[in-house]
Amino acid sequence: MDLHAVILAGGRGERFWPLSRNRRPKQLLALLGEESLLESTLGRITPHVSPTRIWIVAGADLQSEVESLSLGVPPGQLIWEGVGRNTAAAIGAAAESVLVEGDADLLVLPSDHWISDAAALWQTIEMGRALLEQGHALVTFGIRPLYAETGYGYIERGEPTGPGSGSWRVACFHEKPGPEQAKTYLRNGNYYWNSGIFLFRAGTIAQLLRRHVAGMDQALDRLRKDLRDGIDPAGWLRYFEASPAISIDHGVMEKADSVAVVEARFGWSDLGTWTSIAEHLPENAAGNRTRGEVLAQDSNNCILVSDGDGLLAVVGVKDLVVVRVGDATLVCPKSRVQDVRAIVQEGKSDARLRRFF
Amino acid sequence: MDLHAVILAGGRGERFWPLSRNRRPKQLLALLGEESLLESTLGRITPHVSPTRIWIVAGADLQSEVESLSLGVPPGQLIWEGVGRNTAAAIGAAAESVLVEGDADLLVLPSDHWISDAAALWQTIEMGRALLEQGHALVTFGIRPLYAETGYGYIERGEPTGPGSGSWRVACFHEKPGPEQAKTYLRNGNYYWNSGIFLFRAGTIAQLLRRHVAGMDQALDRLRKDLRDGIDPAGWLRYFEASPAISIDHGVMEKADSVAVVEARFGWSDLGTWTSIAEHLPENAAGNRTRGEVLAQDSNNCILVSDGDGLLAVVGVKDLVVVRVGDATLVCPKSRVQDVRAIVQEGKSDARLRRFF
Repeated sequence: MDLHAVILAGGRGERFWPLSRNRRPKQLLALLGEESLLESTLGRITPHVSPTRIWIVAGADLQSEVESLSLGVPPGQLIWEGVGRNTAAAIGAAAESVLVEGDADLLVLPSDHWISDAAALWQTIEMGRALLEQGHALVTFGIRPLYAETGYGYIERGEPTGPGSGSWRVACFHEKPGPEQAKTYLRNGNYYWNSGIFLFRAGTIAQLLRRHVAGMDQALDRLRKDLRDGIDPAGWLRYFEASPAISIDHGVMEKADSVAVVEARFGWSDLGTWTSIAEHLPENAAGNRTRGEVLAQDSNNCILVSDGDGLLAVVGVKDLVVVRVGDATLVCPKSRVQDVRAIVQEGKSDARLRRFF
Repeated sequence: MDLHAVILAGGRGERFWPLSRNRRPKQLLALLGEESLLESTLGRITPHVSPTRIWIVAGADLQSEVESLSLGVPPGQLIWEGVGRNTAAAIGAAAESVLVEGDADLLVLPSDHWISDAAALWQTIEMGRALLEQGHALVTFGIRPLYAETGYGYIERGEPTGPGSGSWRVACFHEKPGPEQAKTYLRNGNYYWNSGIFLFRAGTIAQLLRRHVAGMDQALDRLRKDLRDGIDPAGWLRYFEASPAISIDHGVMEKADSVAVVEARFGWSDLGTWTSIAEHLPENAAGNRTRGEVLAQDSNNCILVSDGDGLLAVVGVKDLVVVRVGDATLVCPKSRVQDVRAIVQEGKSDARLRRFF
């Protein structure tokens, strides 16, 4: 069975404002190095999957930004979300696109995560493909928790899929836990962080979306017809508009039987906030993690980011996140990085300020 | 006796970085309204002093910036400090310039202070001119202290110059005090803040500079000759280079006999730091004082400045000063605003960062 991959490049990454902006979302930013997170994600799979079998789902408003990256993926495999409808609809779009030519394994990858080791990623994915061969319908990839994180969903494992297989049947999916629950999960040993990476046959997921997600059947049937006739951005818009907004986790994974979890052999982070990004920045003697031109006097344990040709100077502060990018600056305590999204939403709702987001 | 005025527009106002920059010093900034502090200062005296009797001393490197303001002062009355040499040399330059045409009263005004009421200022100055008529050699203007400020010099008054005159002989000048000393001054009632505004005859101050400041006699004698021959920027540079760097307070006022102090009838601030500027910004319900586009969530008692077309957003902070101007942002606690100068000096000493200062 051939292997296709779909990279989910929707979303905005609002918690990275002011580095992320409406037209420069997180996955298009070089948060960790020279290339964008989307390019890094693509770079991890192109040694194993031909660009002719890679699909990218991205916001239609970002078409020119995505196309300017020279990703090497044929234009017909770029799927434009005219409206954002979460991951179930995006994966359905990719699955039906694959199915035009016949069934195949379909690997789903978020575009904006950090993965420590592409070879280990691939080893783990091959374990997942073997599970599909053995008849498991859906494969998830679980990250052994390093601490009691409350920002991730968890996967509880059940029986092993075989002796020493390194994979298990999924007992249950769990929503983001509270702090106490997260500690219990961490101690228990049978819980994984849900990496958001999935593997299944295109035909299987298309069928399960139709079965479990109300309204997906008509949307997918219409899409199947449009794809055969040759789809255009208006067709994609129609499809996404017709699709319910639901994640693949809620829509399918939690409802399906025969879900397996492979324990990841790679380091992983969803790079969800400035504090998680900062773990990848060098720490100086004062405990500050900085990027760009920064002057810090008598300041400790801060995350200090200055982008492009500009300077950030701090005096006498601690435990702060300060991000200076172009025409905007954000200041918040490290403990409040989750609240950046709220200020972005407040800003976007103000016509006078919208241009800064 | 005619009245001339000299506006001292040297200095950089480094504590206002990043709003102030090397080529955009504090006195050229519109810190309090639509016009620069220099223009406001000029506006307070032009109703009373003809522009042909106003002198401005400014840094030679700021010539194009100052000339672009259309101040209405004849070009020959702009005195360019080729090198900064503090106030004694600047006042000496103005005094000798006045003396080319004959003696006159000379009013000295800093260019970068706030004064509440120009009419009250003028009333106070007229009291000073009367003292000159009565034979007092040097007149200072004292501000009744509002709190135990440690950032100002103090003037201790002695005997009244006359019954109910509102002016006194100066008993002593005092350097910036420690906190306890400042409280004593405040309670005592005989101490004023030194406003930095002075009044004397041009001939008197030129004579006292020659008498009390070592090296000023040769510098002023050479200047007198250069002024008669027609001075050029090279001549000004020679003069300032030959002059000692000392303030008029240390150089003359503290050493002279016959110094009087007039109690000011106007509100005054030297606008020395972000906290003193902020007193002139409106305070909102959360205790924040803001200027420009600012989004503040769950933040209190901050000074938040965003200049030009840009946005400053803060979440969950308090008692901070954050200033976002163009390519630079400063963050420091309110209690550390005096330390901004130190970070500017560190930045200027770093070739890689100098462009931001």
